Amino acid sequence: MSTLNPSGIITITTDFGHKGPFVGVMKGQILSRFRSASIIDLSHDIMVHWPAEAGFWVARCHRYFPPGTVHCCVVDPGVGTERNIIAVAANGHLFLAPDNGLLAPVIDAATDACIVRIGEQTLTHFGLHEVSATFHGRDIFAPLAAELAAGHCDMHALGEEVSDYVPGWLETPRVTATRVEGVVVTIDTFGNLITNIDASMIAPMHTPTVQIAGHELPLLVTYANAEPGRYLALVNSFGVVEIAQSQDSASESLGVNRGAPVVVCAR
Amino acid sequence: MSTLNPSGIITITTDFGHKGPFVGVMKGQILSRFRSASIIDLSHDIMVHWPAEAGFWVARCHRYFPPGTVHCCVVDPGVGTERNIIAVAANGHLFLAPDNGLLAPVIDAATDACIVRIGEQTLTHFGLHEVSATFHGRDIFAPLAAELAAGHCDMHALGEEVSDYVPGWLETPRVTATRVEGVVVTIDTFGNLITNIDASMIAPMHTPTVQIAGHELPLLVTYANAEPGRYLALVNSFGVVEIAQSQDSASESLGVNRGAPVVVCAR
Amino acid sequence: MSTLNPSGIITITTDFGHKGPFVGVMKGQILSRFRSASIIDLSHDIMVHWPAEAGFWVARCHRYFPPGTVHCCVVDPGVGTERNIIAVAANGHLFLAPDNGLLAPVIDAATDACIVRIGEQTLTHFGLHEVSATFHGRDIFAPLAAELAAGHCDMHALGEEVSDYVPGWLETPRVTATRVEGVVVTIDTFGNLITNIDASMIAPMHTPTVQIAGHELPLLVTYANAEPGRYLALVNSFGVVEIAQSQDSASESLGVNRGAPVVVCAR
Repeated sequence: MSTLNPSGIITITTDFGHKGPFVGVMKGQILSRFRSASIIDLSHDIMVHWPAEAGFWVARCHRYFPPGTVHCCVVDPGVGTERNIIAVAANGHLFLAPDNGLLAPVIDAATDACIVRIGEQTLTHFGLHEVSATFHGRDIFAPLAAELAAGHCDMHALGEEVSDYVPGWLETPRVTATRVEGVVVTIDTFGNLITNIDASMIAPMHTPTVQIAGHELPLLVTYANAEPGRYLALVNSFGVVEIAQSQDSASESLGVNRGAPVVVCAR
Repeated sequence: MSTLNPSGIITITTDFGHKGPFVGVMKGQILSRFRSASIIDLSHDIMVHWPAEAGFWVARCHRYFPPGTVHCCVVDPGVGTERNIIAVAANGHLFLAPDNGLLAPVIDAATDACIVRIGEQTLTHFGLHEVSATFHGRDIFAPLAAELAAGHCDMHALGEEVSDYVPGWLETPRVTATRVEGVVVTIDTFGNLITNIDASMIAPMHTPTVQIAGHELPLLVTYANAEPGRYLALVNSFGVVEIAQSQDSASESLGVNRGAPVVVCAR
Repeated sequence: MSTLNPSGIITITTDFGHKGPFVGVMKGQILSRFRSASIIDLSHDIMVHWPAEAGFWVARCHRYFPPGTVHCCVVDPGVGTERNIIAVAANGHLFLAPDNGLLAPVIDAATDACIVRIGEQTLTHFGLHEVSATFHGRDIFAPLAAELAAGHCDMHALGEEVSDYVPGWLETPRVTATRVEGVVVTIDTFGNLITNIDASMIAPMHTPTVQIAGHELPLLVTYANAEPGRYLALVNSFGVVEIAQSQDSASESLGVNRGAPVVVCAR
């Protein structure tokens, strides 16, 4: 069911930013248990305390890594409280995160997801005796990711299989034949606004237009299809609707941030 | 001519910044084809849509890596349009970038540059069937960099050799015996202003002085040679003229940005 | 005394930030001498020209890496002047830094520290002939870190053992039975204020409270123990007192920065 052949690769996704050595010491703990791990930073600029963005990205990105990769996700406002930690096997990949809704986009989109709740005795079993109240990324997630990626254990050795999990923080877009309502989930360095509206939701529409912040935009193919300075929408390389401004920042120019409503309409 | 012995190292230079998983998924695609690649981030803070800065750095930095390293450069405002992609062999290194002027500083400075234009059939040959319109970094550049760095193919297998290429975005400094006129190309974290004026251009000058933003500065050896707060110029560790403010930020204090004119004069 | 079994891992800590290729070319120089090095970024967002923060972090973080790791630290306002470079062996790890107080927290906390001053002839011995005046991170620190991590030489081959070193930039906290006075050393992405007050200094106190910027805060266990928006103090995962604001930024809300005084009192 989840006997994956590990790739030896671990990705890390956090809201730790780049100040301080927090991601660095997680890597130290991984290498302490699995010296030949390949560790890849997926993103550390997740909006602080907002697991929705981390889940969105890891759900859309994992397939660009070899099967058997372990995706370690730490956006964890409840660290040190009674919240659970889960491991998930889905689409041939393994995921490790607090059970706070982060992995819901991965589980919901998969047909074969298997969820394991990390048990208390697991920490003892793997020698995790010195667990701080505030940094489980270093003290629990990194060591367990290393054990999984090294193939030292199967995910079922980590705890019992469960079927319930905390649901995602974002409402699923409302979809009708002529209208899809979603939100901006994340914003890239260029100021492009990336939504949770999947290409499949708008596929039936003939010449759809995209509404955001009082503007109505055409759906084009790539950025350079619009004149410099003009707004446009497109289905981006991760298969979701994105709003951009050619050679400029849509986020700044529209004054729009995460969570902003976006509507796609059939004309 | 360009049968290089690959070092197995790939450097990545982009204007993607650190928000989002864009560089991370490029690395996932590299590891999917070349599991033991060593991947080094050169810079992801290139000014958005300005290939000149990326070309400046990669031209000045590649020699600090082992010969046979592949330098993958993606500053690509024209992604998804008819612009070409080129591979360049020069100085024992390989370079991969959109043909938008980015690699001109590398080609212009080399005596042995060999340029290959990536052919349509190359994408098919390497199984690149799912190419998005907006993220060639992940869908073309990363996979081809992996194939080259793994030694799976020679660069001549990627397309036909060409002699023309899009020229660089920066004018070459105007050089006379007593005066050199250049510009600020890039700015570091300390606020130091780094120019395109090469040490060789000012070598004949006796006690040169440097003019920027109404100031005339002495050419010293290192930052600590000036009193704290004083401006100075020096030939930096990459062999170009740099303007600094001892223990402070010249960029902020002078209010100067990329593209600003800089003049070196013989006194 | 210091014949460590190298782990092959090198951590890098600098104030270079993420603009420009400076850390990248250091890695290129490491790989040029030690192709299979594992290189981990500890932090590059050290406050510019403030070795105290780098020393604090490397002293608190090195134990999360395997023994025999080389920690290469470059916060070096005096680069190119007569300041020395030192290698330190302590707690089974190796450290390389300018002798400007950076490594004092490591040396002071260790019982077995051995200090070697890098000699002029060392540079010649290792072929470091092209040393710039402004970038010793690339031209000296990275190559020597590679040689040590590769096990090509013992640290005693780098120079003569010395007993003196430049002291740390931070005063040791003033400790009495009922009061400890320290300062904020560093601030994380969440805006948490991290001090130099060690848990051991306040261990004898019954129900201690923490004073900062006119506020008096309880000492709790984790962030979620306070209501959203409330300030709190805790002993963090690195064993020092930290001031936080639940689900918000203490740094921004209190208007407090590095160096701010913090007092812990017995009630």
